[in-house]
Amino acid sequence: MVRTQVRVRYAETDAMGVVYHAHYLVWFEVGRNELMRAWGAPYVDFERRGILVPVTEARVRWLHPARYDDLLEVETRVERLTPARITFGYRISRAEDGRLCCEGTTTHAFLGPGGRPGALPKLAPELWALFRERTGEKE
Amino acid sequence: MVRTQVRVRYAETDAMGVVYHAHYLVWFEVGRNELMRAWGAPYVDFERRGILVPVTEARVRWLHPARYDDLLEVETRVERLTPARITFGYRISRAEDGRLCCEGTTTHAFLGPGGRPGALPKLAPELWALFRERTGEKE
Amino acid sequence: MVRTQVRVRYAETDAMGVVYHAHYLVWFEVGRNELMRAWGAPYVDFERRGILVPVTEARVRWLHPARYDDLLEVETRVERLTPARITFGYRISRAEDGRLCCEGTTTHAFLGPGGRPGALPKLAPELWALFRERTGEKE
Amino acid sequence: MVRTQVRVRYAETDAMGVVYHAHYLVWFEVGRNELMRAWGAPYVDFERRGILVPVTEARVRWLHPARYDDLLEVETRVERLTPARITFGYRISRAEDGRLCCEGTTTHAFLGPGGRPGALPKLAPELWALFRERTGEKE
Repeated sequence: MVRTQVRVRYAETDAMGVVYHAHYLVWFEVGRNELMRAWGAPYVDFERRGILVPVTEARVRWLHPARYDDLLEVETRVERLTPARITFGYRISRAEDGRLCCEGTTTHAFLGPGGRPGALPKLAPELWALFRERTGEKE
Repeated sequence: MVRTQVRVRYAETDAMGVVYHAHYLVWFEVGRNELMRAWGAPYVDFERRGILVPVTEARVRWLHPARYDDLLEVETRVERLTPARITFGYRISRAEDGRLCCEGTTTHAFLGPGGRPGALPKLAPELWALFRERTGEKE
Repeated sequence: MVRTQVRVRYAETDAMGVVYHAHYLVWFEVGRNELMRAWGAPYVDFERRGILVPVTEARVRWLHPARYDDLLEVETRVERLTPARITFGYRISRAEDGRLCCEGTTTHAFLGPGGRPGALPKLAPELWALFRERTGEKE
Repeated sequence: MVRTQVRVRYAETDAMGVVYHAHYLVWFEVGRNELMRAWGAPYVDFERRGILVPVTEARVRWLHPARYDDLLEVETRVERLTPARITFGYRISRAEDGRLCCEGTTTHAFLGPGGRPGALPKLAPELWALFRERTGEKE
């Protein structure tokens, strides 16, 4: 599991005075990017090899509203890894008091040259090995 | 079921050359707003009565990427209505050829004065009656 | 001059209860896209020929706040056209009462193959001819 | 002058493969928030006293495109301060090599109770004193 922080921008709030719900998906992106960076395989490395990892599915629950200027903690883990797909899990909570604001998962496909679905072990064996190893670790 | 259209803005695309996934949640918002307007109860009417209807849960599947300048059709329906919650279902497809790009649901709570969870039949009986009636209609 | 309309989305509001200022730049984009489409040269045609037209400069004045669900009218015109650059001017007002909310200009460069600055008359003579002709028209 | 950093999110890129121009205005917001926090007067303090400081004018020049995952440095200073208005100046450059990507200014009005234009020295004398003092400092 990898932790990173984001501070809520005014741009991310809405007329209810709280964060607009779709922005949590952007912070999920921040979370998995920082997980991949922490694991030594930043997402830019995937793209440099011609591998895209688009989102194919998401489930999100919003539990408590975050507000402007709140410092939030984003916890990200890999929940499932197969040759064709990866599922990340996220928990976003208020740094101040640990109050859980949002949790969810996103599932992503591995696409190789031409945007065709591929198997990560073939597309990039060492990234596959790295992710397998790190995913299996006890936290 | 209510149909509305959106045209993909450059602002909504990302470096993969396609729409960034989180924007579909914004189009879901457009879809349910237009459903509520078409039903004679625009969302602003809820807020004017002090009722908020925030998103508490979402499930989304992305099936085919939309691109800049695509004209998209957003189909919205009410999938479930209870005194405390409402679930909308969405299908977003390319107007040109009907290709399904994204589908999903969002569930919302009814909040009354002070942001406390409430029952719509008590908060606004005539909006409840209207939504019950329309939700039960054959399409 | 070309007119188009946008309706304010909840996603575009902020905790002040009004539209977050940066979204007007997105509506400027909507405005110039619709101008180009109305003139018979949609922006996708530029990109298909390998011409990019990125924003290099903007000036914006916000005069009156727009709110959620407001219907806005976006007026766009070409203020200046040279072989290397184009400047669009915008006025965004509330459709209901004509109240001016925002006005501004954006200047764009023409980039050809490899992203290098180019002259539109060389990159695409007929688009240049079309834009020259339309820009010179009395409105 | 206050420096802060932002990392480019995928959500902030567009189909040209670079950052969509309007997001720089959001980073300007991040810059002035961090300036105000560093000066001991975070923007939330203004809002808690019922003072809003909306943007009324902006000038922006984009000089070099930033890309996904770039680490950017945002430099913010107060360029001008009057009882009724404040102007911030910004420079956003790539942390890696100092390449300047974007520079600009935003001007803001001070609004007091009821959203009416006010004079900061009257609305909040000690915030006025603080800003006057810090603005006058040699950097």
